[in-house]
Amino acid sequence: MRTRPLKVALLGCGVVGSEVARIMTTHADDLAARIGAPVELAGVAVRRPTKVREGIDPSLVTTDATALVKRGDIDVVVEVIGGIEPARSLITTAFEHGASVVSANKALLAQDGAALHALAEEQGRDLYYEAAVAGAIPLIRPLRESLAGDKVNRVLGIVNGTTNFILDKMDSTGAGYQEALDEATALGYAEADPTADVEGFDAAAKAAILAGIAFHTRVRLDDVYREGMTEVTAADFASAKEMGCTIKLLAICERAADGGSVTARVHPAMIPLSHPLASVRGAYNAVFVESDASGQLMFYGPGAGGAPTASAVLGDLVAVCRNKLSGATGPGDSAYAQLPVSPMGEVVTRYHISLDVADKPGVLAQVATVFAEHGVSIDTVRQQGKDGEASLVVVTHRASDASLNGTVEALRNLDTVRGVASIMRVEGE
Amino acid sequence: MRTRPLKVALLGCGVVGSEVARIMTTHADDLAARIGAPVELAGVAVRRPTKVREGIDPSLVTTDATALVKRGDIDVVVEVIGGIEPARSLITTAFEHGASVVSANKALLAQDGAALHALAEEQGRDLYYEAAVAGAIPLIRPLRESLAGDKVNRVLGIVNGTTNFILDKMDSTGAGYQEALDEATALGYAEADPTADVEGFDAAAKAAILAGIAFHTRVRLDDVYREGMTEVTAADFASAKEMGCTIKLLAICERAADGGSVTARVHPAMIPLSHPLASVRGAYNAVFVESDASGQLMFYGPGAGGAPTASAVLGDLVAVCRNKLSGATGPGDSAYAQLPVSPMGEVVTRYHISLDVADKPGVLAQVATVFAEHGVSIDTVRQQGKDGEASLVVVTHRASDASLNGTVEALRNLDTVRGVASIMRVEGE
Repeated sequence: MRTRPLKVALLGCGVVGSEVARIMTTHADDLAARIGAPVELAGVAVRRPTKVREGIDPSLVTTDATALVKRGDIDVVVEVIGGIEPARSLITTAFEHGASVVSANKALLAQDGAALHALAEEQGRDLYYEAAVAGAIPLIRPLRESLAGDKVNRVLGIVNGTTNFILDKMDSTGAGYQEALDEATALGYAEADPTADVEGFDAAAKAAILAGIAFHTRVRLDDVYREGMTEVTAADFASAKEMGCTIKLLAICERAADGGSVTARVHPAMIPLSHPLASVRGAYNAVFVESDASGQLMFYGPGAGGAPTASAVLGDLVAVCRNKLSGATGPGDSAYAQLPVSPMGEVVTRYHISLDVADKPGVLAQVATVFAEHGVSIDTVRQQGKDGEASLVVVTHRASDASLNGTVEALRNLDTVRGVASIMRVEGE
Repeated sequence: MRTRPLKVALLGCGVVGSEVARIMTTHADDLAARIGAPVELAGVAVRRPTKVREGIDPSLVTTDATALVKRGDIDVVVEVIGGIEPARSLITTAFEHGASVVSANKALLAQDGAALHALAEEQGRDLYYEAAVAGAIPLIRPLRESLAGDKVNRVLGIVNGTTNFILDKMDSTGAGYQEALDEATALGYAEADPTADVEGFDAAAKAAILAGIAFHTRVRLDDVYREGMTEVTAADFASAKEMGCTIKLLAICERAADGGSVTARVHPAMIPLSHPLASVRGAYNAVFVESDASGQLMFYGPGAGGAPTASAVLGDLVAVCRNKLSGATGPGDSAYAQLPVSPMGEVVTRYHISLDVADKPGVLAQVATVFAEHGVSIDTVRQQGKDGEASLVVVTHRASDASLNGTVEALRNLDTVRGVASIMRVEGE
């Protein structure tokens, strides 16, 4: 084994960074054996240098992250700051000064992955980011390497633990959204401002990363259709139960049937209880992958948290260090397929629509005619009447989002339709 | 991209090999883009050269596998023959003549993995075998690479699709073992001689491979305790249901609590219905991994079949080809931890024991005394009487296998115990 250590600079020492530092210290012998050389924590860049950090030599702590990545003797920079800046500038500076980078930064990778990969390749560095999607769950590496000889057609995932916790709570207790959110906040599963999670921004960034890797193409954050889950109601869960379904916030990346384009989207959807994703409880994540040859795979585990995310970071750190020692770089960006990303209107799926209608003869015929006129085929209709009011629950066969939107608009114009109570997509069949 | 192709020799062209050849042809452009150079099928060694093989140029087919791997211009040998010989000799010859190897051969890897890895390292070649364990499911790569910075403590897996199909059928229909086996045979899930599957030999080979990789140590096939599932009865499933459990044939690799030794075993066991492995149906495989930092991960998918296994082979092929181009080799054998493998008697788990006993006062006290004398603590006891006969169902707390065996032996010597109807381990809690 080489005795001269590989030097690691840690940018950020919060929940994830402190776990990375802790494991680097406590598992130093194992890491050295697995890499083939010892790794040394050579510097830790933080915002608050006076905070006591157990197990970290205070002489390593600095507030000058830029100087740290510019030192020139750093082999690997571990970036766990998050956000766009200063993370982006620090990573590019690291590449330019000889370091490879391990990052957990989904927002940055989703926004600037292409440019960062291009710079890494130009400079002959590695850019690894298993921790950016679904925490500890090995997902980037299996998609990029294990399935490198296969053709992935769909990725369907629960990639946000906060929203899964809330939806699971609503499902199991009958609670409303606000009540479930309050509990998630009290237990530390939701942040004080939960917008990034509940509005699907976090999941959309992960969807962009996953779609790009799965389909070997470029998918930008702006390409991802996004709907949050704040309007999911207890009534929606009741409807889902009647269909043998539950509701999950899903990140869905699909290759079109003709193979010529892809789509990426995040929204709440009903999925059958028999689907493996339906039984993913609490704050766990799981990603379902469908490929030509391998069929259906699922990867399940904790999607967040200091230690699980640190596990993913350290797996990457070992790989990047091995690459450094062998003078090679690992698989980089792969966007050769250059597939266009289709707009949401072209997505084809099934729909569950609840309508409040007048309770009089002929309404169903009128409604059915509107669906037919827009080319949306109905699978089942259920009619419930009460006191002159009635509701119609329509479940469609597969139809394009554009056709469905046209249908709903026309339904709203019918005198006999008092309102569209809910529209939810049905996935996983 | 490099234009000179990498040359691949395919050894075996059965269910898996023909899929490998098909995908290499139909996905040639994708493989080239992902590798950075085209790959060319340079030869196919078969036993029956006259068989028509759709899509394979007959001029590539040979019965002389040794000459093929000795050609000297082969970059990668894909071995999908199975069994010990001639696979072993062909792989060593391939290494000696400049080729890296991708194999799907669990029996060979479990028996001779150490020697093959040593030769590969000596010769500077790669030896990859994702397809050897759990078919298409990425498992070797996640354990070896994604979790390289973590400490794996337990691997708990359903790694044989045939036996899972049979047990699932028994669970869902109440069928007995023979009836479920007959159905599995009729549907092609079980071979005419199902011994390797139902007696746990196949799972034991996979357990040896997984334990070695997970714990960075050497686990030989002989180190794996093995019990088949041919004696699991409909009554066992009824008992399991009463406990809120089902029965699976599990491969279990564990690190002792003190970290100083490991165990590996294959046997039927009850697991709670709430455990993610309980809902793995039909011929699917799934492997549950517990680590210090990442917590609980699960990997799920098809564990066998031509196309899924070919997907795993091709993922390895892409990786090995990339390594060839960069002049590096991937992570090889890692057995530095040199942990002893403890015998089955030291395994600690819970037990479900059904006893036929005399229906008279004092029996329970006698039985409980025997458990206490052997240091096996009882969790629950259920007593059922009928016509002078009675049964006692005892579920224990965690105890060593040796203690449990001592207990059972002493129970058999009690006059009031007519027989030990069943003993089954309880896992997954």
